[in-house]
Amino acid sequence: MTPLLKRFLKDTSRRIERIFGQLFASKPQEPRILRQAMRYSLFAGGKRLRPCLAAAAAQCCGGSAGQTLKAGAALEMIHTYSLIHDDLPAMDDDDLRRGQPTNHKVFGEALAILAGDGLLTYAFEVAAANARDRGLDGAASAELIRAIASGAGTCGMVAGQAADLQAESWQGRLSRRQAASRLEGIHLRKTAALIIASLEAGAILAGGSAAQRRSLRAYGRAIGLAFQIADDILDVVGDKKKLGKKGSDAENRKLTYVSLYGLDGARAKASALTAEAHRHLLSFGRRAQVLHDLADYIITRDK
Amino acid sequence: MTPLLKRFLKDTSRRIERIFGQLFASKPQEPRILRQAMRYSLFAGGKRLRPCLAAAAAQCCGGSAGQTLKAGAALEMIHTYSLIHDDLPAMDDDDLRRGQPTNHKVFGEALAILAGDGLLTYAFEVAAANARDRGLDGAASAELIRAIASGAGTCGMVAGQAADLQAESWQGRLSRRQAASRLEGIHLRKTAALIIASLEAGAILAGGSAAQRRSLRAYGRAIGLAFQIADDILDVVGDKKKLGKKGSDAENRKLTYVSLYGLDGARAKASALTAEAHRHLLSFGRRAQVLHDLADYIITRDK
Repeated sequence: MTPLLKRFLKDTSRRIERIFGQLFASKPQEPRILRQAMRYSLFAGGKRLRPCLAAAAAQCCGGSAGQTLKAGAALEMIHTYSLIHDDLPAMDDDDLRRGQPTNHKVFGEALAILAGDGLLTYAFEVAAANARDRGLDGAASAELIRAIASGAGTCGMVAGQAADLQAESWQGRLSRRQAASRLEGIHLRKTAALIIASLEAGAILAGGSAAQRRSLRAYGRAIGLAFQIADDILDVVGDKKKLGKKGSDAENRKLTYVSLYGLDGARAKASALTAEAHRHLLSFGRRAQVLHDLADYIITRDK
Repeated sequence: MTPLLKRFLKDTSRRIERIFGQLFASKPQEPRILRQAMRYSLFAGGKRLRPCLAAAAAQCCGGSAGQTLKAGAALEMIHTYSLIHDDLPAMDDDDLRRGQPTNHKVFGEALAILAGDGLLTYAFEVAAANARDRGLDGAASAELIRAIASGAGTCGMVAGQAADLQAESWQGRLSRRQAASRLEGIHLRKTAALIIASLEAGAILAGGSAAQRRSLRAYGRAIGLAFQIADDILDVVGDKKKLGKKGSDAENRKLTYVSLYGLDGARAKASALTAEAHRHLLSFGRRAQVLHDLADYIITRDK
């Protein structure tokens, strides 16, 4: 990780966590246990990748990181809700997340469902407040909500999780080429869509042009897929303790980029996507340095 | 039900269902089974009370029903998601809803959770689009999203469900007065909060004044509680077939207004709240006729 990226990630994380502290302070109408359940997962030590993407995208468009913090917090809340719901027994049934017991293991299934619902709901309020604070007009404000909802919703992240759950039914019955196309379809929606929404949110809040937004979307698509391929590689070669995972995808006989292309093939694919990501940033010049560094970091990280 | 209210409910329902038909048409990125799961619950024959409240509130403020249809659809989507999640085995564990198998009974738990998540997410996009179509400025647009999120979220509907789930732990251990206060707290959040948000949404979209919004909120609080008391009464005296329910609250030993106040006491409370609701509408004059009729209907309905 470059010193620039390290500082940027650390700085953005600190600011996002300060905002979380304010947003999730005690409120008279809010059951304490529900707030605790939301905070448990919000403060479980994520990389705050999505807020960083929003902030860096704003910089690319001539804005500043500070203009996107609430939307970044909202995107992180959406990411967090999706982890809570994905871990539920009816979904992926995971006991551990980042080495800690998953939300429903600590608070029970009912509260975990509600904590997720609460985070998702609040996220839109917080994003709308960011648009208002920035003085966005009605059209841009609606566009911000649309971009986030579209990345998170039933054509984006929720679709990806649904398609992932259905994958068991077709796995092993398709040709390699068909399986590869399905796998990409899953990850474009499950991972890339919210990454793209984060970049779009930053661009919208900074008043980026249509061309700038197009470049950022293409960059997001590339790093979103690269991120997932890196995940699949880490699942095979990574340090289980650092990943905080129990049981690998291979043990679960899950279709992954590694099972499809082999370790070297998956690495080559991730590198090609990273190169593509860099290309999409060229028009931004030096303003895109953080996003360049992020693209490299995504496939070299160890957790 | 008065002829005016009957026509208004029928007309609004028809328009909302037409919008649902458009919003939930086939989309290339959306898994078909997920769309089917959302449509199954959306078209399960609800009264469309929340869209009607938004439309009628707009009329009170000098606007028209047509100005609020998308926000009304969004509120109905939020109401529908809450029913899907509340019925889950980890929550209220209901097999039937309006006489039909609940969502997870038909589509499985995982898809039911995702269908709920999808409806909630999409609702904010649709509400924001309504604000944009109406030409609302950034501040009013953010206020619309805030009102809806606040009614639906962890100080509103989600809080109510969480508090309801916790009720088992204190039931029987509190004095009658304490239990009454807790019960009201649950229903103010679980039912009244989204009713209030529906009225607020209508007022915001029609450009209502702060005083008008205050009156509508007070009206919503009164009919929200009256609605719940009527539910509790119906649970005891109503026709199980019409209600489409299996097992009454009394059989489940649940705390209700009837178990607290007796049947006559609960009826008196509902009447007092209805009278209060009428009073809060006085300043609107004849424009509030639909809301007057609705307040009466809520405690005389038989399902």
